[in-house]
Amino acid sequence: MLLLGRFISEYKKKTKSSARIFARSARLHVNGVSHNIRFYEPYPFVVRSAVGKNLVDVDNNKYTDYWMGHWSLILGHSSKPVRDSLRGQIENGWMYGTVNEQTVILSEMISKAVPVAEKIRYATSGTEAAMYAVRLARSVTGKKIIAKVDGGWHGYTSDLLKSVNWPFSESESSGVVNEEKIVSVPYNDLEGALGILKRCSGDLAGVIIEPVLGGGGCIPARQEYLMGIQEFVHKNNSLFMLDEIVTGFRFRYGCLYPTMGLDPDIVTLGKIVGGGMAIGIMCGKKEIMEFADTRERGKSERSYVGGGTFSANPASMAAGHATLNRLKSHGSIYSRINSLGELARKGIAKAFDGSVEVTGMGSLFMTHFLQNGISGIENATQASRCDTLMLQRYHFKMIARDRVFFLPGKLGAISDAHAKEDIKRIIMASEEF
Amino acid sequence: MLLLGRFISEYKKKTKSSARIFARSARLHVNGVSHNIRFYEPYPFVVRSAVGKNLVDVDNNKYTDYWMGHWSLILGHSSKPVRDSLRGQIENGWMYGTVNEQTVILSEMISKAVPVAEKIRYATSGTEAAMYAVRLARSVTGKKIIAKVDGGWHGYTSDLLKSVNWPFSESESSGVVNEEKIVSVPYNDLEGALGILKRCSGDLAGVIIEPVLGGGGCIPARQEYLMGIQEFVHKNNSLFMLDEIVTGFRFRYGCLYPTMGLDPDIVTLGKIVGGGMAIGIMCGKKEIMEFADTRERGKSERSYVGGGTFSANPASMAAGHATLNRLKSHGSIYSRINSLGELARKGIAKAFDGSVEVTGMGSLFMTHFLQNGISGIENATQASRCDTLMLQRYHFKMIARDRVFFLPGKLGAISDAHAKEDIKRIIMASEEF
Repeated sequence: MLLLGRFISEYKKKTKSSARIFARSARLHVNGVSHNIRFYEPYPFVVRSAVGKNLVDVDNNKYTDYWMGHWSLILGHSSKPVRDSLRGQIENGWMYGTVNEQTVILSEMISKAVPVAEKIRYATSGTEAAMYAVRLARSVTGKKIIAKVDGGWHGYTSDLLKSVNWPFSESESSGVVNEEKIVSVPYNDLEGALGILKRCSGDLAGVIIEPVLGGGGCIPARQEYLMGIQEFVHKNNSLFMLDEIVTGFRFRYGCLYPTMGLDPDIVTLGKIVGGGMAIGIMCGKKEIMEFADTRERGKSERSYVGGGTFSANPASMAAGHATLNRLKSHGSIYSRINSLGELARKGIAKAFDGSVEVTGMGSLFMTHFLQNGISGIENATQASRCDTLMLQRYHFKMIARDRVFFLPGKLGAISDAHAKEDIKRIIMASEEF
Repeated sequence: MLLLGRFISEYKKKTKSSARIFARSARLHVNGVSHNIRFYEPYPFVVRSAVGKNLVDVDNNKYTDYWMGHWSLILGHSSKPVRDSLRGQIENGWMYGTVNEQTVILSEMISKAVPVAEKIRYATSGTEAAMYAVRLARSVTGKKIIAKVDGGWHGYTSDLLKSVNWPFSESESSGVVNEEKIVSVPYNDLEGALGILKRCSGDLAGVIIEPVLGGGGCIPARQEYLMGIQEFVHKNNSLFMLDEIVTGFRFRYGCLYPTMGLDPDIVTLGKIVGGGMAIGIMCGKKEIMEFADTRERGKSERSYVGGGTFSANPASMAAGHATLNRLKSHGSIYSRINSLGELARKGIAKAFDGSVEVTGMGSLFMTHFLQNGISGIENATQASRCDTLMLQRYHFKMIARDRVFFLPGKLGAISDAHAKEDIKRIIMASEEF
């Protein structure tokens, strides 16, 4: 704690302009921020620009960034191909509100890379995409219950706002009215999950899972776990839905599910496929997606799926193309950032000499300070029972002293703008801590 | 119908590239589009660029646009001040995922112009903002029912997906699970509305209304109607919420509600305040918004309000500043476009010689072909019972023949890029029809 005090006073000394601007922000915004997780003590620094691997704050401090726009910027901040594409698009308008070829091109790219994307519907955010997936599953099956996993995060939609943060049995929010239609199951525990699913199987519309638990602790799902759930769900005539908003195009050019031999009915995408511009995608098998057809189906038969004002706007589409084009034409990006991830996981674990576990996969990694007898991290319960306060301090120390930015408490994402030297700096900073 | 056939064949002749691209779009997208309302027969043209008042399609047809990006582009497409601002921002990054000064500046502008915006939370879309408003109302009051009006549209959130399209008593969608927590009341009928509200007053968390019914028919609310509902709601310790996503900064520099002497607890904003970039805002009184404080309140006490990956991204913020700055420094924009709206309403009504009513306010207008004994349009029921097929044909004829674009069946929005000559062309096109 003494040390923490020293880090805080160092931080305050070098972020005086941030402090002034944050005070203005605090007057007008709840918690001072526009997303709850963006606040940390004593106050978050205020970003002036973001280019390549760096965030630069209003006091001209430069931080090597592993938050990378909520993990959406796999090419780094303001990367040249995406910037050029956006620049060109902006000359021709950023909001048509109509059909445009940019959308068709992006959809053709996605459907080639993601076989299940036989039909695609764009939304504006992952929250919306998840909401539509839930509605569609209920429409297709005529059943009501949606299952998710403890610690699973699918955005703020009221339809999935349950069992996100520890303790998972406690409501996430007041003001939610249909929690009884959401069921949560343990992660990476097939027997435990099936036990719960069986009890609600008669009314189970579908299951939605991230194949790498993201906010819940950066924990890859075991293949047999996902396979077992998929098998149960399909036998039960329910939908198997994967949330690949974080994992889609993160580890390879396409989704994670084909590498696990999975056969989802619906996949949600976001983040990387929009190149950092607002996007959410629900895609899936033709016969399922067509429940959203408003021309063939009357009001109460259809699944009423958006859209929205900003869906498939040409600026998001252009940023998406440029990102996917780059990833496709530079296939070595994946092997490079995946091996940097491996280096980070091993190096940080070694630096802490057995007192942490570094979870993750490919270019995603997260450090867990083991305590409470936890010796391995396979689910969000174990992740939550680690020393999460220590993780916040570790991240804050890196912000204050090492000019390295992780959103305190969250997993890190390596981008194409990062180099081996950067990972070594994290490892050194870990050794010091 | 003979005439319609001729318009369609003229349209097909000049939109051959659109037909080809739309065929590709139809293979990958439900209804061929990314928002249900963007489809019309035989197929929508495909936009290549949008500058000023014009949409240009892939066959180089130029259309004077009154859809204007779902009515979000009050300065016209790709307007210079917003374009310059976006261009500059893009050099510094479009997605920080952190606190930035651009957000503070936009919030300060909004809170000065919209007195109730004591606290502001950014979301990515209007759908999300409405979802958060509902959740917050339930958190603040501990009650569950939200009332809306017949024909009221607040985006696709599951929490308000009821009584949007005629017939209002029929579900909007399969797969919606909490319709019994949404109550719909007649618009502009205070006695009728209060009768229904009284029956659920014990569990009434709040009422949400657009002060000019948008998608429901472009119909201004009567002041005494809104005042009466507000009075009832406040006496009942429920929240009075206004959806000003369409009306905010549309008629004046600020919201519509102050001109009506209203005192809402929460206001949602979107569209214009983001300059055509993705945005949604929930703002309101401090003591209400602070139920969303996650630092002071535990999980089940707080109202869990986003954010989202793209909330308050610097590109949307920059486009918002540039738009509001322009509107503020060029106050004559409002008087000019409002009087163009007046000209359109009067001119179109005269052209149809009593067989239509043109509703609207300021720069918004919508033509209703009277039938079924309807003689005036004061609510969505009357609007829906007009000849909406004729409206679609009227709009389609203008697309095919007059190079004027209204999204078929929807209201028109005049921007600063439109001139008197443009309105005269609509009037002439109406006379011909």
